[in-house]
Amino acid sequence: MSTLTEVPAHLRAAVDDAKVRVAALHAELPRWDLVVWTAGNVSERVRDIADGEGANDLFVIKPSGVSYDDLTPEAIVVCDLDGNLVEGDRSPSSDTAAHAYVYRHLDHVGGVVHTHSTYATAWAARGEEIPCVLTMMADEFGGPIPVGPFAIIGDDSIGRGIVETLRGSRSPAVLMRNHGPFTIGKDARSAVKAAVLCEEVARAVHVSRQLGEPVPIAQEAIDALYARYQNVYGQH
Amino acid sequence: MSTLTEVPAHLRAAVDDAKVRVAALHAELPRWDLVVWTAGNVSERVRDIADGEGANDLFVIKPSGVSYDDLTPEAIVVCDLDGNLVEGDRSPSSDTAAHAYVYRHLDHVGGVVHTHSTYATAWAARGEEIPCVLTMMADEFGGPIPVGPFAIIGDDSIGRGIVETLRGSRSPAVLMRNHGPFTIGKDARSAVKAAVLCEEVARAVHVSRQLGEPVPIAQEAIDALYARYQNVYGQH
Amino acid sequence: MSTLTEVPAHLRAAVDDAKVRVAALHAELPRWDLVVWTAGNVSERVRDIADGEGANDLFVIKPSGVSYDDLTPEAIVVCDLDGNLVEGDRSPSSDTAAHAYVYRHLDHVGGVVHTHSTYATAWAARGEEIPCVLTMMADEFGGPIPVGPFAIIGDDSIGRGIVETLRGSRSPAVLMRNHGPFTIGKDARSAVKAAVLCEEVARAVHVSRQLGEPVPIAQEAIDALYARYQNVYGQH
Amino acid sequence: MSTLTEVPAHLRAAVDDAKVRVAALHAELPRWDLVVWTAGNVSERVRDIADGEGANDLFVIKPSGVSYDDLTPEAIVVCDLDGNLVEGDRSPSSDTAAHAYVYRHLDHVGGVVHTHSTYATAWAARGEEIPCVLTMMADEFGGPIPVGPFAIIGDDSIGRGIVETLRGSRSPAVLMRNHGPFTIGKDARSAVKAAVLCEEVARAVHVSRQLGEPVPIAQEAIDALYARYQNVYGQH
Repeated sequence: MSTLTEVPAHLRAAVDDAKVRVAALHAELPRWDLVVWTAGNVSERVRDIADGEGANDLFVIKPSGVSYDDLTPEAIVVCDLDGNLVEGDRSPSSDTAAHAYVYRHLDHVGGVVHTHSTYATAWAARGEEIPCVLTMMADEFGGPIPVGPFAIIGDDSIGRGIVETLRGSRSPAVLMRNHGPFTIGKDARSAVKAAVLCEEVARAVHVSRQLGEPVPIAQEAIDALYARYQNVYGQH
Repeated sequence: MSTLTEVPAHLRAAVDDAKVRVAALHAELPRWDLVVWTAGNVSERVRDIADGEGANDLFVIKPSGVSYDDLTPEAIVVCDLDGNLVEGDRSPSSDTAAHAYVYRHLDHVGGVVHTHSTYATAWAARGEEIPCVLTMMADEFGGPIPVGPFAIIGDDSIGRGIVETLRGSRSPAVLMRNHGPFTIGKDARSAVKAAVLCEEVARAVHVSRQLGEPVPIAQEAIDALYARYQNVYGQH
Repeated sequence: MSTLTEVPAHLRAAVDDAKVRVAALHAELPRWDLVVWTAGNVSERVRDIADGEGANDLFVIKPSGVSYDDLTPEAIVVCDLDGNLVEGDRSPSSDTAAHAYVYRHLDHVGGVVHTHSTYATAWAARGEEIPCVLTMMADEFGGPIPVGPFAIIGDDSIGRGIVETLRGSRSPAVLMRNHGPFTIGKDARSAVKAAVLCEEVARAVHVSRQLGEPVPIAQEAIDALYARYQNVYGQH
Repeated sequence: MSTLTEVPAHLRAAVDDAKVRVAALHAELPRWDLVVWTAGNVSERVRDIADGEGANDLFVIKPSGVSYDDLTPEAIVVCDLDGNLVEGDRSPSSDTAAHAYVYRHLDHVGGVVHTHSTYATAWAARGEEIPCVLTMMADEFGGPIPVGPFAIIGDDSIGRGIVETLRGSRSPAVLMRNHGPFTIGKDARSAVKAAVLCEEVARAVHVSRQLGEPVPIAQEAIDALYARYQNVYGQH
């Protein structure tokens, strides 16, 4: 287990670059109407290349309760993979334990985003997965967006619910029941993209179903769209 | 009863600080789509520390009919707890009597906000409380958002309806029937936060119910979420 | 009948002031999401004080097909009350005949606004009046927002439908069937305010009815709210 | 068949002008909420006047995966009518083959736009045309907005579906099933206008139908409105 009390010198530049990226990416959340007030958070893993096991990786994340207008790179905090604060003037986001759990258990994940975006949260409140009835959904999610279990903050149950649900799915997004979406990606930008598209398909499929049933897309078409898109954009 | 005709010298600095805060907080109302045109108002109490009873407290509030673009600190007016104008070039908001009533009867309240935000007002028009089916709602509101009585402007009936409804609830928000939400907080910023989150949960729960029934959250989970959140953020 | 070929010298200053106001007020239409692209228009009457009958009044209005970004005071055109162009480099809005008809037949009207705002247009497409179930609606509209007849552009039928519908109503807004809202006011600013509030109540009442029936407001409460509000804000 | 490897000298100025226009028009897509993230694309044909057959026409289009903030004229790429890249540092949009097919088969088309705008996409997911129940829809679309077939990216099936559907319709917009809208125009600006109005009528008719049935407009009124509007604005 990590017991770092400061950012190691060999990770300094990588951490600072990640802070700049993550501060800028937070601006995408209100821009695309995914959050209100100080809700929502973006994190990015900083890999410790020197450590073959990944146990000394760090991640940068939004501090708790800070207005989106005040999210400079200097305000972003650094944690180890147990969620302990390594650097920063403020407490890390109250969702830090969930981000840390995802990084510890899914090695390919380099970025995590959590929002309470309205339409995705509405599906989550019913505990209902979003069916794959749009080509852009087949492209990005490769099928339905699944629902994770009800879990409350305070232990590893949110992180465990995210990881267990995403392991059985192509989707980079999971709707945690009665809570809201978490998304993952190879880096923070990919996870933000997944959060933006998750809300967009949650809204479009909701609107479509208000006046009838969307036409299903055949599984082989979903597979073909997903394979092509992942190849072009090189995700996962 | 207060008969002030000007701001007492020992409250000058506190009043001016409150004007700056309240002017800036008004910009949050159109930012989060809670108001149109000149609707909506934010107030903040200025405590008269020298007076043990609170009878000489003041509050600052938006003037009536002023565009959001023109809400400078100088435009904000000052009233006593009976709602009489103590300082300012314009009439106070036509909702001033309701704000004053809340400050007179709920000593822990330091800020009050009123909006006609769309989804909260839609629940208010049906006279239907918003059920607690989201974890962020359990965090901030500790249960359902209650409905207050129908009351029309012109006497104390709006203020009384707000106070009587909120005394029986953990919620810092009340939906006044056929009218819209009023929210309270330890200061104006907390009350604005409650107004922003009230509209967000009103919208998300509305959207969720359009296509079925949200899954209820067990009362003990609501209680645990509320207790943790109030402890972390130190509200009320 | 007017046969002006230029703005009379004694109205020069009043016309130029109206152009400045109307150019600025057009920015309120996209700001409050009432229009897309180049749709929507605002006009304001310039009274010919020297003429007791009003037959030589003018009005200023948006030109046809101009982007909201290009609506400077210089771009605003001037028409007589028959809708003939008196001054301007471009054609007046294709809705000019309807504005002119309203000014000719309702002498107390100083401003007219037309939009295709989404929710008001949705009620108009069903030919259904908006019931008065919100206190802000009682304040501003004094009752339901009525529906005018189906009428197509090309003669006076739109103007006549507006005037006949509004003569039988307290409301400064009418929903022209399958078309959209027209609003009036003592000046352009009042008519823009009515357009903004018309869309807001159209949206809030729509949302409320999606999940049940709003509670009616008693007629005497509507009357009391309307009387107070018109007195305070001095409209009509 | 074109085998160009660079922009011919006699088209240089026309291509550069088109890049400026198309870069600026892309900003209209997020402005009117038609796209999220990097979705959506606008193209414009550059006619090779010297070539009577049109086989040497080019078109300019958005590159793939570029943020809307980075869409300068220099970033816009140039393709021939087979969709091959003629000039540009990046790959053309993944929808380029569909744009190229439209230009090859519909000679009067000078601009093409594709979005995933929410309400239009919701109708597309149900495979349901939008009925013509608004006067602005009669003006711009001359009747219902039709649905094209399900088609997946990778061959000419999207382009063929667009062309076959629009040949049988007055509408400049087609809803490709489970996918989203494509619009055409005499130039890129006209196609963007059609995309903006397509989403607006998709939303207004959706909202109207949520609470009942819109009143139909008689065919002769639709024909009259369409004839007048096309004459005034000179489209097609």
